[in-house]
Amino acid sequence: MSTTTTTPDRPTAPEYTPTDRTVPTRARQRASYDRALVHAILDEGYVCHLGFIRDGAPVVLPTLYGRVGERLYVHGSTGSRPLRMAGSRAAGAGSGEAEAPGLPVCLTVTHVDGLVLARSAFHHSLNYRSVVVHGTARQVTDPEELRTALDALVDHVVPGRSADSRPANAKELAATAVLRLDLDEVSAKARDAGPNDDAEDLALPHWAGVVPVAPRTGAPVPSADLDPSITLPAYLTAL
Amino acid sequence: MSTTTTTPDRPTAPEYTPTDRTVPTRARQRASYDRALVHAILDEGYVCHLGFIRDGAPVVLPTLYGRVGERLYVHGSTGSRPLRMAGSRAAGAGSGEAEAPGLPVCLTVTHVDGLVLARSAFHHSLNYRSVVVHGTARQVTDPEELRTALDALVDHVVPGRSADSRPANAKELAATAVLRLDLDEVSAKARDAGPNDDAEDLALPHWAGVVPVAPRTGAPVPSADLDPSITLPAYLTAL
Repeated sequence: MSTTTTTPDRPTAPEYTPTDRTVPTRARQRASYDRALVHAILDEGYVCHLGFIRDGAPVVLPTLYGRVGERLYVHGSTGSRPLRMAGSRAAGAGSGEAEAPGLPVCLTVTHVDGLVLARSAFHHSLNYRSVVVHGTARQVTDPEELRTALDALVDHVVPGRSADSRPANAKELAATAVLRLDLDEVSAKARDAGPNDDAEDLALPHWAGVVPVAPRTGAPVPSADLDPSITLPAYLTAL
Repeated sequence: MSTTTTTPDRPTAPEYTPTDRTVPTRARQRASYDRALVHAILDEGYVCHLGFIRDGAPVVLPTLYGRVGERLYVHGSTGSRPLRMAGSRAAGAGSGEAEAPGLPVCLTVTHVDGLVLARSAFHHSLNYRSVVVHGTARQVTDPEELRTALDALVDHVVPGRSADSRPANAKELAATAVLRLDLDEVSAKARDAGPNDDAEDLALPHWAGVVPVAPRTGAPVPSADLDPSITLPAYLTAL
């Protein structure tokens, strides 16, 4: 669970400003720039797909993320490729510069809500909600921001968990790299409807409708070395 | 459900050949090039995240995919951005060329299997399986291959569904663009284990273990205009 606090230097207009990159070429009616909707979609997830360019080619990697106000944080060890690239760019920027040039990225979060089965193969579809963020990711160097980001990452996976685990120590903080991506150039897209069959297909003998889909968490499996006197915390039974 | 038929011109060695792009810089022990594992991960899903470069910047979009042997197919209308780009490149290739240059892409499929809760915030992780495919996507122009691809796309969403829906007609085929991506430069990555806490943290009073996660399908919701005499087909009750 992310906080809803916005960082002081960010705007809080009810909508993000559309740009050439965030106006889709098709299904425009499914696009939204509503800030609250974007936040809600982001807060429901914890895995994003992060795209960047390496050696001139696109790369897409799944990774954990967390939201704090109008900033997203992406987690990885300092050895991971996107973080190394952002870091090496920063290192090459010269010691006199205030900010590293950063890594151009596209960060996408998708929730599948339903399988849309139409009478015609052509009109099969999905109900879904997604957010696409374009921008430049920069490595977090401020220790306080790094701690805030790590808490957000852990709390996105399980709300309330960061308060019930040992915080990162200095050695771990040094081994952890986190990228920050501002929520500026952002759009959400969603479909939430039944099948859209052509009128002449309605009499066909095929079942049509929506099969709901959602992630389900199963019963937590304690670690083999867990002290048996430690019972399941409330934030896990609530899942 | 994909067929396991391989196209005649593709190799069927038990492993994909690693390349610079498919050898990870970290967690190498989690990487695999096993063809059967890659196929199994791909066949379990239907939504991928497709990365490409537009105007020099990375773009990542969620989209449906299907597998047929050693080929992946990605679906979209002819108006969608990646397909238009592949199409416009093809148009610019000159009429004398045998094959369009295509669109460099990275296609990633991720399944989250569990939330790994360690005593330390630092060791929190996910259990997951993912496949990353690098390559050049090309628009499918052969009508027979297009039909095969569309069947695979529908059957990935619900196995058996393509046989129980009206096949695409000529007009629909003309309005549908499908990109093909060969499975050549491919890796799988997986984590399937409990938390990896440091020895000195084992006595901490925090619950540790794994919370299993899996997608769940709910009870199918018939379309409001569905003939009530049409009962739920067996391939849907099996979900």
